[in-house]
Amino acid sequence: MKQGYSKPKALLFDVFGTLVDWRGSLIRQLRAFGEARGLDQVDWPGLADAWRGRYAPSMDEVRSGRRAWTVLDDLHRESLLALLPKFGLEQRLEEEEIEGLVRGWHRLDPWPDVSGGLARLHERFLLAPLSNGNVALMANLKRHAKLPWDCILGAELARHYKPDPEVYLTAMALLRLAPQEVMMVAAHNDDLAQAQALGMQTAFVPRPTEHGPNQTTDLAADGAWDFVVASTEELADRLCDNGEVDLLRG
Amino acid sequence: MKQGYSKPKALLFDVFGTLVDWRGSLIRQLRAFGEARGLDQVDWPGLADAWRGRYAPSMDEVRSGRRAWTVLDDLHRESLLALLPKFGLEQRLEEEEIEGLVRGWHRLDPWPDVSGGLARLHERFLLAPLSNGNVALMANLKRHAKLPWDCILGAELARHYKPDPEVYLTAMALLRLAPQEVMMVAAHNDDLAQAQALGMQTAFVPRPTEHGPNQTTDLAADGAWDFVVASTEELADRLCDNGEVDLLRG
Repeated sequence: MKQGYSKPKALLFDVFGTLVDWRGSLIRQLRAFGEARGLDQVDWPGLADAWRGRYAPSMDEVRSGRRAWTVLDDLHRESLLALLPKFGLEQRLEEEEIEGLVRGWHRLDPWPDVSGGLARLHERFLLAPLSNGNVALMANLKRHAKLPWDCILGAELARHYKPDPEVYLTAMALLRLAPQEVMMVAAHNDDLAQAQALGMQTAFVPRPTEHGPNQTTDLAADGAWDFVVASTEELADRLCDNGEVDLLRG
Repeated sequence: MKQGYSKPKALLFDVFGTLVDWRGSLIRQLRAFGEARGLDQVDWPGLADAWRGRYAPSMDEVRSGRRAWTVLDDLHRESLLALLPKFGLEQRLEEEEIEGLVRGWHRLDPWPDVSGGLARLHERFLLAPLSNGNVALMANLKRHAKLPWDCILGAELARHYKPDPEVYLTAMALLRLAPQEVMMVAAHNDDLAQAQALGMQTAFVPRPTEHGPNQTTDLAADGAWDFVVASTEELADRLCDNGEVDLLRG
């Protein structure tokens, strides 16, 4: 292992894609909603993908300063409303149904390794999400997916969206930890690039089906991340067992 | 029960005194430190009380605007340093020993009812601290005392100390809940008075030995709180069982 390497004290996790399968969860939720409502001509997987397709552009409006701070729940809602006509749903949903679909982002299911991996990591490290999801969304998701967070950090506390540096810096200030004491864990290279630029440790957990079977992005590490692991269980193997950290396998 | 009463969706808890026995915990820690260091002529209970005695005045400097926002860990440290001469400890402690004593506030033990009471409440309600302790302190205390928080709210996120209204308002904004959807739970009447003034529900849990055997404050409710209970277990009895809320016993 590297000379002088020190394990982090806290691990911060990206959530959408890294820990929870937003696409599979949304498609299941939307299909169940469609069946219950007798809406059987709707392309629900297409709606899930189109909804997420508006995610980055909606945050760009805030990142650029063109729009005042707006939480992700509200961006999700606006994006869904904008897509309803294209999917034949305009004026066919009640207000509380729309609200229920938006709240689907609070009930996403974790990837199969997450429960066991995070439980082991939690025995040794302080764990928190560092997500673009707002605090209420993350708190509800914590309850739904039983994520062992010690606190909830992220975009809303900085009023900036990742990868703006303010999100990472605010989290470290709240934890009162130096960058090298904190590890960012994500399935997205751009998230890790910003964390590393700020001096944080990094771990890449690729999720090659986050965007479905034809995913083309983030299939492999494109930076010199401290760890590259196939799952949170493997990250626990590397960080928790026997007190030694095997960086060479990364 | 009252007509039209709606249970809260989230419960916010005061922590020091309401959930954890700061005085008993600090005295135990200080005595153990004294024994380990052979410092046997020190009035450790007196130091614990004097340390907490500087708590309110130190926050008043921030509340009044005379001093810029400063987190509680730093106020605790300054207060301890100021007290060392009076207790015969000046220049007798190493820097890391001082840091260890200040970190004692991250390792306070809960009252006996808290583990069971909060576990039951957590099944039905979103739970979070609303403390003057900073986020890192609360996150470490969560781990030590095994408190089932869904997120950590409190003074640092508002950069104000309770009972400044900004602390309560920031928490409700982050939860995206209306005041009547949130209950403040505390052993201190002034905390509940501010919460009620802002429209929140209130529950008083007296802790008549928080300040030791001769406590004179907060022995009884001095406001029309929604619930007055002897413990968090009784609060769970009242809020969780059988779906009915018995307000008349309050």
